[in-house]
Amino acid sequence: MTTQPSLSAAPELAVTRWFNTDDNPTLAALNGEVVVIEAFQMLCPGCVSHGIPQAQRIQQTFGDDLTLLGLHTVFEHHDAMTPVSLEAFLHEYRITFPVGVDTPTPGSPTPVTMGRYRLRGTPSLVIIDREGNLRANAFGQVDDLSLGAALARLIDQPRLQPETG
Amino acid sequence: MTTQPSLSAAPELAVTRWFNTDDNPTLAALNGEVVVIEAFQMLCPGCVSHGIPQAQRIQQTFGDDLTLLGLHTVFEHHDAMTPVSLEAFLHEYRITFPVGVDTPTPGSPTPVTMGRYRLRGTPSLVIIDREGNLRANAFGQVDDLSLGAALARLIDQPRLQPETG
Amino acid sequence: MTTQPSLSAAPELAVTRWFNTDDNPTLAALNGEVVVIEAFQMLCPGCVSHGIPQAQRIQQTFGDDLTLLGLHTVFEHHDAMTPVSLEAFLHEYRITFPVGVDTPTPGSPTPVTMGRYRLRGTPSLVIIDREGNLRANAFGQVDDLSLGAALARLIDQPRLQPETG
Amino acid sequence: MTTQPSLSAAPELAVTRWFNTDDNPTLAALNGEVVVIEAFQMLCPGCVSHGIPQAQRIQQTFGDDLTLLGLHTVFEHHDAMTPVSLEAFLHEYRITFPVGVDTPTPGSPTPVTMGRYRLRGTPSLVIIDREGNLRANAFGQVDDLSLGAALARLIDQPRLQPETG
Repeated sequence: MTTQPSLSAAPELAVTRWFNTDDNPTLAALNGEVVVIEAFQMLCPGCVSHGIPQAQRIQQTFGDDLTLLGLHTVFEHHDAMTPVSLEAFLHEYRITFPVGVDTPTPGSPTPVTMGRYRLRGTPSLVIIDREGNLRANAFGQVDDLSLGAALARLIDQPRLQPETG
Repeated sequence: MTTQPSLSAAPELAVTRWFNTDDNPTLAALNGEVVVIEAFQMLCPGCVSHGIPQAQRIQQTFGDDLTLLGLHTVFEHHDAMTPVSLEAFLHEYRITFPVGVDTPTPGSPTPVTMGRYRLRGTPSLVIIDREGNLRANAFGQVDDLSLGAALARLIDQPRLQPETG
Repeated sequence: MTTQPSLSAAPELAVTRWFNTDDNPTLAALNGEVVVIEAFQMLCPGCVSHGIPQAQRIQQTFGDDLTLLGLHTVFEHHDAMTPVSLEAFLHEYRITFPVGVDTPTPGSPTPVTMGRYRLRGTPSLVIIDREGNLRANAFGQVDDLSLGAALARLIDQPRLQPETG
Repeated sequence: MTTQPSLSAAPELAVTRWFNTDDNPTLAALNGEVVVIEAFQMLCPGCVSHGIPQAQRIQQTFGDDLTLLGLHTVFEHHDAMTPVSLEAFLHEYRITFPVGVDTPTPGSPTPVTMGRYRLRGTPSLVIIDREGNLRANAFGQVDDLSLGAALARLIDQPRLQPETG
């Protein structure tokens, strides 16, 4: 099996705690699935007005055809956006998809997963294909028509058969 | 070549006059293309607030990958929505895709193409695949994520080779 | 009685036809009333998205405390925005306040009332106080908070007693 | 001096900490001013989408003609909406008017000022006239036209002369 040279493997998530799931989602375990990650901060106005509502529309539209994860990538106001505050935020905004808390980096404001993906800020939308390749890493607003097209194309890619022998 | 039994051939357009094109588009001539038809009336509030802006987003997002046509399906206030008024409307709302005037039906308020497609009202969004089959006929609001997915899937279908012999 | 020197008398309307009223409203007859005039063109996108909805909110909020008039000031695409088309437009957009057709000016695209008020375009909002003075002549968007304040202040001005010999 | 029998004196604020001001605003000290209080919770979606933007429009429109205060009336998720989190929220949402933290009530989720005013929830808009009377106590959405009218009328009321004697 070969992947296109231009595609790079999506780095693994580093999460200290998950909400809205009893599992501990990892990209390794999700291999074979299309994965969409909504990276946000709960006090980021653009996340509240655009990113999170779009993630909720993805959840409604594509349901079981992909795995949607939120990632709370706090890189500023760390004391203000603790897991306790996040939990209330998820409740008030009726966010029901799994949301992980990005692991803090000692000595740096940028958490670990945010650093691995070199996110430019929040909201950022990350899309990973069934083979674990990074397909999109978009900061700011993404339009729904383009996004719907991109997700359909990745959903329609066949799951690879594991190589044997 | 066989088509799925549930698919039906899209009826041909009946248009008295086209704006924004020097051609005379027909579905027959567009065979092999994905065709999207935005059926509207210029004085229909839902067309102005939803249908036409969505058509303009389709034009921006999918550009040359499909053929977008407007169809002015006047079924009420016929004297108020003449081609002269339509032309000013297209100019003021900066509509640049081809728009055809659906042919009036003698003795009926419903124009010919609208009748052939059994449209329930305006705005209606009609989607036709590369083989000329009707794939969607949606009255009212359609969400962009679903629409983007549907269009990508039809765009990605291979053009059929003409059967020979 | 004296008026402030900076105030000027609002010019009389010149209207060929009224919709939504059996009267023939004139500023002379409305003396003593606060009058708001929404000047629009039915094919002007900013009128449809902003000016007319604001006029409808004025109608709902201030009801009988002022007189709201629409004025169809066609200065372009004259053949496209005839009274026949306007009547259908008023029906489709559920406009129930009186709307007058501004009298065309022979040899000029600008109709008579629009010229008298030197409107810069559409939508324009004109406000006239109980004494018939022009209090506002605003082109484009006006915010509701400021407008509500301005209208309340004019509504609260006492009706003048007629001067007697 | 007499007030109308139907008006009741606005209860004093109970605030543990103020942001965006070095003063310690009290209604007693603000007597003679029109006071608008936007009561909100930072994780209340309706406050973020409606109440706070409206308060910011009040600030822009009426500026020095009234005193605008925010009041953080936390009655749920107390651990999630601490002053530390509020401070980051005010920064991110660019809120520059004074905001006080409503004093917690021992043994009750409802803070003190919220209880005194019997607020039904957040967002709530409270309006107090120059004489310290409660003029509005509105839960949920308030439209800008009506609000602009109400504020203009209170602003235009004369400041009372202190009684002597």
